[in-house]
Amino acid sequence: MKITVACAQVRVQPGRPEVNTRKALEYIEKAKAEQVDILLLPEQMLPGYLLGDLWEQKAFLKDCESYGKDLIAATDGICVIFGNIALDPDHVNEDGRIRKYNAAFIAQNGKLLRGGLPYPFISKTALPDYREFDDSRYFHSIAKLLPELHPDTIEDLVRPVEVTIRGEKIKLGVFICEDGWTENYYYNVPALLCKNGAQLLCNISCSPFTLQKNRKRNELFSAQAKKCDLPLLYCNCIGIQNNGKDVFTFDGCSCFYDKDGSLLADAPAFEEALLTGTFDTRTGHLSSKAPVHPMLNETEEIFTSLNYGGREFLKQLGIHKMTIGLSGGIDSAVTAAFYVHILGPENVLLLNIPSQYNSDVTKNLARRMAESLGTNYAVVPIQEIIDKTVEQFNSTRIHNFATGKEQTLQVSPFALENIQARDRGARVIAGMASLWGGGFSCNSNKSEMTVGYATFYGDIAGVAALIGDLWKHQVYALGRYLNEAVYHKEVIPEEVFTIKPSAELSASQTVGKGGDPIIYPYHDYLFRAFIESWYKDAPEEYLSWYLQHTLEEHIGCERGLVDQLFPDAASFINDLERWWNLFCGLSVAKRIQAPPILAISKRAYGYDHRESQLGPYYSRRYLEMKANVLK
Amino acid sequence: MKITVACAQVRVQPGRPEVNTRKALEYIEKAKAEQVDILLLPEQMLPGYLLGDLWEQKAFLKDCESYGKDLIAATDGICVIFGNIALDPDHVNEDGRIRKYNAAFIAQNGKLLRGGLPYPFISKTALPDYREFDDSRYFHSIAKLLPELHPDTIEDLVRPVEVTIRGEKIKLGVFICEDGWTENYYYNVPALLCKNGAQLLCNISCSPFTLQKNRKRNELFSAQAKKCDLPLLYCNCIGIQNNGKDVFTFDGCSCFYDKDGSLLADAPAFEEALLTGTFDTRTGHLSSKAPVHPMLNETEEIFTSLNYGGREFLKQLGIHKMTIGLSGGIDSAVTAAFYVHILGPENVLLLNIPSQYNSDVTKNLARRMAESLGTNYAVVPIQEIIDKTVEQFNSTRIHNFATGKEQTLQVSPFALENIQARDRGARVIAGMASLWGGGFSCNSNKSEMTVGYATFYGDIAGVAALIGDLWKHQVYALGRYLNEAVYHKEVIPEEVFTIKPSAELSASQTVGKGGDPIIYPYHDYLFRAFIESWYKDAPEEYLSWYLQHTLEEHIGCERGLVDQLFPDAASFINDLERWWNLFCGLSVAKRIQAPPILAISKRAYGYDHRESQLGPYYSRRYLEMKANVLK
Repeated sequence: MKITVACAQVRVQPGRPEVNTRKALEYIEKAKAEQVDILLLPEQMLPGYLLGDLWEQKAFLKDCESYGKDLIAATDGICVIFGNIALDPDHVNEDGRIRKYNAAFIAQNGKLLRGGLPYPFISKTALPDYREFDDSRYFHSIAKLLPELHPDTIEDLVRPVEVTIRGEKIKLGVFICEDGWTENYYYNVPALLCKNGAQLLCNISCSPFTLQKNRKRNELFSAQAKKCDLPLLYCNCIGIQNNGKDVFTFDGCSCFYDKDGSLLADAPAFEEALLTGTFDTRTGHLSSKAPVHPMLNETEEIFTSLNYGGREFLKQLGIHKMTIGLSGGIDSAVTAAFYVHILGPENVLLLNIPSQYNSDVTKNLARRMAESLGTNYAVVPIQEIIDKTVEQFNSTRIHNFATGKEQTLQVSPFALENIQARDRGARVIAGMASLWGGGFSCNSNKSEMTVGYATFYGDIAGVAALIGDLWKHQVYALGRYLNEAVYHKEVIPEEVFTIKPSAELSASQTVGKGGDPIIYPYHDYLFRAFIESWYKDAPEEYLSWYLQHTLEEHIGCERGLVDQLFPDAASFINDLERWWNLFCGLSVAKRIQAPPILAISKRAYGYDHRESQLGPYYSRRYLEMKANVLK
Repeated sequence: MKITVACAQVRVQPGRPEVNTRKALEYIEKAKAEQVDILLLPEQMLPGYLLGDLWEQKAFLKDCESYGKDLIAATDGICVIFGNIALDPDHVNEDGRIRKYNAAFIAQNGKLLRGGLPYPFISKTALPDYREFDDSRYFHSIAKLLPELHPDTIEDLVRPVEVTIRGEKIKLGVFICEDGWTENYYYNVPALLCKNGAQLLCNISCSPFTLQKNRKRNELFSAQAKKCDLPLLYCNCIGIQNNGKDVFTFDGCSCFYDKDGSLLADAPAFEEALLTGTFDTRTGHLSSKAPVHPMLNETEEIFTSLNYGGREFLKQLGIHKMTIGLSGGIDSAVTAAFYVHILGPENVLLLNIPSQYNSDVTKNLARRMAESLGTNYAVVPIQEIIDKTVEQFNSTRIHNFATGKEQTLQVSPFALENIQARDRGARVIAGMASLWGGGFSCNSNKSEMTVGYATFYGDIAGVAALIGDLWKHQVYALGRYLNEAVYHKEVIPEEVFTIKPSAELSASQTVGKGGDPIIYPYHDYLFRAFIESWYKDAPEEYLSWYLQHTLEEHIGCERGLVDQLFPDAASFINDLERWWNLFCGLSVAKRIQAPPILAISKRAYGYDHRESQLGPYYSRRYLEMKANVLK
């Protein structure tokens, strides 16, 4: 028999079960109209997934359960598999709150079907507790259930669900998101489902976008389908969800794999879609008329995700207008061009905010950019207020009530740099934004965030850091992409790509001289290793690789660069410790108070990469190696 | 035989195993000098506990293991039980990184003793994943080990450790922190240890201070000792540890319970100590010459914890001086008096920063406070800069490059309030602090944090929010305590306690009129329920309690107040939704960028109470009730 199967790749709005229920019902009706027999909806379709501790709120949980009943009631003539929270009010989680499962419900004709559990739902088996995921914080697990249920093994509990379609019985191997990412878990859920008789594997997910993640998923899921000799349906949602410090996009990219592991069809990224196919129960083959979309390169992926995420996040916050400080440098240029693309030029206000240290070069570049973007632009000079502030501070009489003495203090050159940065951010941009309406932008990139090259309440401020998860070289590439593929003209002037970066906060930091001590072709890659390497490489590894002449291949920077920059170990160590101290030191304090970041990498600052303020640590082996080499 | 047992209540410095190793070795020597037979050191003695994702760094983990060997080597003639990370390099955690356990090592004469595991350590069984705890993110669990080890049940793995003291064998029931908090876990570890033959229960902990927590621990641990009919040693560390957004203090309060459950002795709070006692193997009784310290009341507990935590946190950050904005209101008064107590009056700079809206009353109060504290004081008026800013903003010509038209915008009264707040915080306080040296203070309290009554980059700024986990009524009580019990004089003038709170940001917000819309005797308790109620009560519960006339007892405010404030349901609903919308709305964005909070309550904003930006949600039942009652 031929069965029509479908994935409803829908937009999920976290924390709004009433909105998500309407969406699910809409897609159930669509599926019915297309004679779909089995419809998949994403993991946590009704509540959303990244909810923080809203997962503890009883009223919310009960609502999700109640809306779930509405969905179940709408399944006459169709089998619908949807993700929702499952409550067991008779038991508690280990935190003492109502017991809950990250569950899949399989409903048909208004009734729920069962798998291997003594409950009318399937529970997620593999609960991820890394990166932005906190499943064990919220959800009970089958592993914890085992001693209560007394089965021989977990294998007895992970069973397919038998559904009857037009008189024929089919065993669906339903599993949830991480259950398909079997690499490091003891139980291989798809293999267990297969062993227990599944005829079709159905994975429902709520899986955030990460650069290169779909390639990895294709490898893993395709191998599973092949190994099980079963077709696999993968249903993921779209939308954005956040964990406070990080905003994640969900790209969907729902797809079908046939039993030989081949990718048959996929849904477009970041769009709602009903992806349909035909499962032949006789041959066990899956087929689909839908296309397979081409893979994007890195910059295309970055643009697509930030474009979607930036747009959706502003929409969610109710922000329709943005104010952006435009220095003439690459970071603010890319951010400005991006927001103009997202909101339209009429809704963006670009501010050039010069002091005496800003060059005509950058001021003109800023103006040219605003002109080519056709947007709103103003120049707000700060020198007068800076001068008055310095004068006020230098003349402020501090009275000591113990001694009766008075003193004055003097603004140092370093203090003056931060005074300028805060005047731009907290006085001008925040102030003008409140007049213009909407929010204002944080233009910091990931390289700066890594070492805290930004001023508290100055440039690390705003509603979101759109390019906060991009290394400097990715910012440049995105700038080129905006010119070439989005605007099809040079909205970001060529000079912005070629001038040496400078903060222009003092006479020694100028566009000609530079003044930015980060050597991006090397440090971008070193810093990336600081945060993105899976085993969290530390100075011990970097020094040892330097000494073995393998550092470049380990961190991925250009060959030959390291020897050129650091002809001797002392200079290498000096540089390494300078940045490591900043990475583990003051920059952590800055990141704690930084705006939310649009997360796209395999490790973003914020809730994805959790940090305590501890200060730098150097291991025994590092200190020994260092002592040896500097002897 | 009589055996000398001891708890080394030591200061643990998170992320610094070399420092902690020196400390542990020092206490092992002390214990040897006092002929101690069995010495307990705290959970995660060497690495510390709240480390964020430093738990992923291989070099750090290997160092902890290596320093652990130093400790083991120092155990000639003594049995030492200490917490450390245990690595299993042959296996991976579910995240694919090296497998690690939150472990207790039991060492004697340079060798490790075993319990029920096939490893030379004891693993924590109950892994907390609530509040600030993320054990499952980092540590492998016995539950996950079960299918690999194939025992019949977990009970086979949770066994006492047999140690030989002067020829006599004693079975020690060693367990780690949460294993003693058995309320909601399936396995009762102390009961299993008892069943498997333990003669003495030894709990090593790294347990943060929370108001009232020691009372609860005494109840639970005493009941366990009694039920098992075994004495119980509880060893906790002191120090501070943080999770980025929250700084936790560790009060120690290590103690001994006899087998009848009675509390025999305890170590002083927030001090290092070697608490010793005698265990009689014949009678099974424990005894000690050490005293039991009296319990503190709430305000004493708050003062003690903040005093210790504030001091240690500044020390850790290397901050010896502080700048504090002093408005004349209670929050800045308490904060200022506290920092003067912590750092000494010579190191504190108090700034009164008046605009045209500040009254002589508050300006004089600020001056009187600085005088009575004998500290440094300056007045930095902002009206001139504010006027110039308004003039500059109002006259800034915004050019639209699409239409060629220009426009100007006008500063609104609301924008002006925020301009003043940011000028105080980001220009004056941050600027003057950079001249004075050290850091500056965030004076926000928990009531304001709940509803976002503070300005981004204005008053929610600084190195830490010392009173950020205190409700307004706790701030007042702490102010009284500082006057009466700390300074023994009125450093905070009486008027500061009695004037109506006002932000003094406009002509309508004055000291006489008030202008603060929060009615603290009611809203303090409502807001407390928003965040601190275990089941996260929501508008559904509040409205239903209001209608049942039980709201006051549920939230704990004064009787009679609710009817007086809200004679009809419409006014109640109006007020509730106003604050709930703020609590779930813009205030979340503000908390995401807020400074670290000194956490003392059972639920602090930050990493303890994790928040996504989602906006307010009202449940079906709430909306039905509301519709009914407003009909």
